[in-house]
Amino acid sequence: MQKSILKHINSPKELRLLPQEDLNLLAQELREFIINIVATKQGHLGASLGVVELTIALHYVFNTPTDQLIWDVGHQAYGHKILTGRKEIFHTNRQLHGISGFPKRDESEYDAFGVGHSSTSISAALGMAIASQLNGDNKHHIAVIGDASIASGMAFEGLNHAGVTNANLLVILNDNAIGIDPSVGALKQYLTNVKKGTQKQDNIFEALNFNYSGPIDGHNLEALISELNRLKTVKGPKLLHVITTKGKGLKQAEKDQVKYHAPGKFDAKTGELVPKTESGYTKFQDVFGETIVELAKENPKIVGITPAMPTGSSLKYMMDEMPDRAFDVGIAEQHAVTLAAGMASQGLIPFCNIYSTFMQRAYDQIIHDVALQNLPVIFCLDRAGLVGEDGATHHGVFDLSYSCCIPNLIIFAPRNEVELRNIMYTAQLGLKQPIAIRYPRGTGNILHWKGPFKPIEIGKGEPLKQGKNLAVLSIGTIANNVTKAIEHLEISHYDMRFVKPLDETLLHHIFKNHNTIWTIEDGTVNGGFGSAILEFAAKHDYKNTIKLKGIPDNFIEHGSVDELQKLVGLDVESLRTEFLKFA
Amino acid sequence: MQKSILKHINSPKELRLLPQEDLNLLAQELREFIINIVATKQGHLGASLGVVELTIALHYVFNTPTDQLIWDVGHQAYGHKILTGRKEIFHTNRQLHGISGFPKRDESEYDAFGVGHSSTSISAALGMAIASQLNGDNKHHIAVIGDASIASGMAFEGLNHAGVTNANLLVILNDNAIGIDPSVGALKQYLTNVKKGTQKQDNIFEALNFNYSGPIDGHNLEALISELNRLKTVKGPKLLHVITTKGKGLKQAEKDQVKYHAPGKFDAKTGELVPKTESGYTKFQDVFGETIVELAKENPKIVGITPAMPTGSSLKYMMDEMPDRAFDVGIAEQHAVTLAAGMASQGLIPFCNIYSTFMQRAYDQIIHDVALQNLPVIFCLDRAGLVGEDGATHHGVFDLSYSCCIPNLIIFAPRNEVELRNIMYTAQLGLKQPIAIRYPRGTGNILHWKGPFKPIEIGKGEPLKQGKNLAVLSIGTIANNVTKAIEHLEISHYDMRFVKPLDETLLHHIFKNHNTIWTIEDGTVNGGFGSAILEFAAKHDYKNTIKLKGIPDNFIEHGSVDELQKLVGLDVESLRTEFLKFA
Repeated sequence: MQKSILKHINSPKELRLLPQEDLNLLAQELREFIINIVATKQGHLGASLGVVELTIALHYVFNTPTDQLIWDVGHQAYGHKILTGRKEIFHTNRQLHGISGFPKRDESEYDAFGVGHSSTSISAALGMAIASQLNGDNKHHIAVIGDASIASGMAFEGLNHAGVTNANLLVILNDNAIGIDPSVGALKQYLTNVKKGTQKQDNIFEALNFNYSGPIDGHNLEALISELNRLKTVKGPKLLHVITTKGKGLKQAEKDQVKYHAPGKFDAKTGELVPKTESGYTKFQDVFGETIVELAKENPKIVGITPAMPTGSSLKYMMDEMPDRAFDVGIAEQHAVTLAAGMASQGLIPFCNIYSTFMQRAYDQIIHDVALQNLPVIFCLDRAGLVGEDGATHHGVFDLSYSCCIPNLIIFAPRNEVELRNIMYTAQLGLKQPIAIRYPRGTGNILHWKGPFKPIEIGKGEPLKQGKNLAVLSIGTIANNVTKAIEHLEISHYDMRFVKPLDETLLHHIFKNHNTIWTIEDGTVNGGFGSAILEFAAKHDYKNTIKLKGIPDNFIEHGSVDELQKLVGLDVESLRTEFLKFA
Repeated sequence: MQKSILKHINSPKELRLLPQEDLNLLAQELREFIINIVATKQGHLGASLGVVELTIALHYVFNTPTDQLIWDVGHQAYGHKILTGRKEIFHTNRQLHGISGFPKRDESEYDAFGVGHSSTSISAALGMAIASQLNGDNKHHIAVIGDASIASGMAFEGLNHAGVTNANLLVILNDNAIGIDPSVGALKQYLTNVKKGTQKQDNIFEALNFNYSGPIDGHNLEALISELNRLKTVKGPKLLHVITTKGKGLKQAEKDQVKYHAPGKFDAKTGELVPKTESGYTKFQDVFGETIVELAKENPKIVGITPAMPTGSSLKYMMDEMPDRAFDVGIAEQHAVTLAAGMASQGLIPFCNIYSTFMQRAYDQIIHDVALQNLPVIFCLDRAGLVGEDGATHHGVFDLSYSCCIPNLIIFAPRNEVELRNIMYTAQLGLKQPIAIRYPRGTGNILHWKGPFKPIEIGKGEPLKQGKNLAVLSIGTIANNVTKAIEHLEISHYDMRFVKPLDETLLHHIFKNHNTIWTIEDGTVNGGFGSAILEFAAKHDYKNTIKLKGIPDNFIEHGSVDELQKLVGLDVESLRTEFLKFA
């Protein structure tokens, strides 16, 4: 009978008491543990399977949590969570009030730094290492970063600074040649050459003053432990290049690494995916993906850009059909936006598709390179609003607020698939200014959305229901909750569609015919859509009662979208309760 | 008698007709022209003097404006402006309604892309080059970028993408080892080694798939022209490493490159600076710089961070006195913020000083790495509000709007030097959350600001004057204009100090005792301070008349701060006129 090791390991301290020959078995058990739970509870699979040995080796060699370990992005940290006291609650992963899908400082002293967005680990670890020097202690600081993440500008900034310090910093480059989609870019090609041995040892990291070692096999525990032990004695910034296989240990996950990044439910033994119950509805992402292909076939000026999210955004459809006109630029939101600006300056019509939460990375570029020059870039802000299980790091709830203050920018949120399709059509007809189109993760509720295109008048809202006294003004897909919440009530409902420019004609009509106005948005209430309505009212001296409903001024945790809507009072029932007070 | 060439050159077309042997004389004349005008009209000197030969060579070899030339940042583009039809109006540089201090698409077809913020040129040029390929023309695309700017993450993202394209892109690395302050970082050390010949030819740019040539002498016209002509025939992405001297041709400017970056008025012959009329008042920057040193001497936890602005921010005082606790991280705002977060996570107290307009570059890091983890980083947002002659690219007018939606973040704007000093003192006493302190460029009006420290109660506004009916609520130094505008009028004036959290107790008092409320801010009115007051009023059902005054929803050009305040109605006279309607 095989001995079971994992069940006795509740902390890295216990792990470090194991004889090294037990670790391969532990790796096997840890891998099975991850597979078994993710198979039923869902989550990110491939990344954590790829670093099982690395995770064990790091906690075995280093004195965590005194030595500080930062997992870049954090998709790969399931093994880390399981080994650091969260084995028994790991089945609550990504569930409401359960543990987070990402490392999180509040959750464990072993989570040295909260992550979620890419490429922050080197900067954070360097900050800690410098603090350690000033505090006079002798901690080790380890950032584990993937080859897709290290190619992002922010990571380069961290390396560039670290290289002129004598900080006790170890960067582990977890090179599996894939992020969520396959890695791209010149650095990736370079790393491939290093692996093949066709690139000389004198390399890019050494040029940046890092002590480089590797590449070594990231699934060989002995090699990992021996090299990490050696690096413990090396002073200053150092980089260990580790080669791993994403999805390691589950055949299908190794083979189809994109699909098994976050595969949903699957059979833990065979790896076979459990077919999803099909709602028959189309994801907004596919509405985007199919529509851009359709439009691009007619309009040769259209190009598509995604920073590393071809599958998630469905720009992949265009990349497959017209590879010379659709660009995955890697995890490089800043570059993506200014690249789009450059293209727009030459008469192309770029659709720049970026998740709402990641657009925060390119905020300056929207203002400085696009809006200031009034270049007609079409921003598609995917995964706007509450995104669900990814939680606080990923909710796209700030976009309306941070966009409202940008001159020249049109801001539109489609209520449904047809509106998304038609605004995309409208935007490529020859807009003279930039536009941001925000839409949520997931499906809409219109089966036959692919009708003939109809242009949308810029700045025109849409009355959906005529009532009296109370008018509800909504923006985007949250309109559907409002529609249900006011069923059988004499309440007016308007889909304002454009946060900017506001439909002032419609607003005058609304303010003159209702006592009370409610604004509903699935973004933060501070400085967002509701605030824009308040500004309109103040400007025109309206004294109506105005109530703002949106995401409150705090970070929202993870859970299903339905659960989170309930949490913030944006679900049908909560809205109805509120409206009933006025109707 | 020497022949004069420059006066006959009104366009690059005419330049290209010159025999090559005339170009050295043209360079000399162009240099004199720049010196003579900047000596009296002020502006950025050193950068343009450094690229006189490069500018001539580029327009001589390439077919501008068909071939597209992008100057990164644009401080160095004065020669370019003078040679491209703006010689006669160059004396209006940076003045209200005059030409911009930066390349600007509206201004000339030779300004292929508007710039101001660093490190955008590679992305923009690549976008143009890809457009050119799709359009089937054969244009050349040239990005001229300095060694400080190429070390920023965004530039790396551009290089990383360009390296896997076959775009017709030429990056010219203008290496003078200095940005505004001397360049820092591992890449800078690497470039120094390349220049010294101690670095092998197989270099970092070749690793990124660029065809590298150089380093060559950027003041040798013959070498430049010959190499540029050769590169015209090289396909794909290529990088030419050019060595120049910032300030070239004016002895003092070569010697003191930091001071002569933008030296103010000086003697065109001797280079001697014209002493500035001393107001006796201290710059807010120096209040910051002196205060952080004072505080850091008492509190060993304090560290200082600047992304490449040690002189401009006056963090230099701390860097000189405590070099191990004050960090210039280069043009790396993203890294600066997350580095600060890493430090704060270990109990250090980081003052992270970033110009308001450049903080846009680190927007995601403020949200994701600082605010979400509630780490007590102290952001000092320098040059907030209208900055004057640098114009639209540099005004710090969006910060209140983009900060208001960030949970956990305290937002404070000091009315004067004493308030800045005291909030800095307060912030390092042990805040449990992050704070953003925004203050303007230039001097205050208190001679003796360096009194004993007094803590400021978080979230507490300050009544400045008691009047009736009308209450003016201001934030930051614009309070001074309000104070003058309401002289002898029975108008109340409150310095709210905190945009977040708002002083709700004071606000209730204000709303109960006045009919009309005016909010005054030197930031955009969309979603800013005024909007926060509207949100308060809506929440509590106040029906007072509320008027918002701030920067309107468009980009504001360049000019003196006084002129620009008049332009947007924030000057004393305009405010007084408005208030008189209510008083």
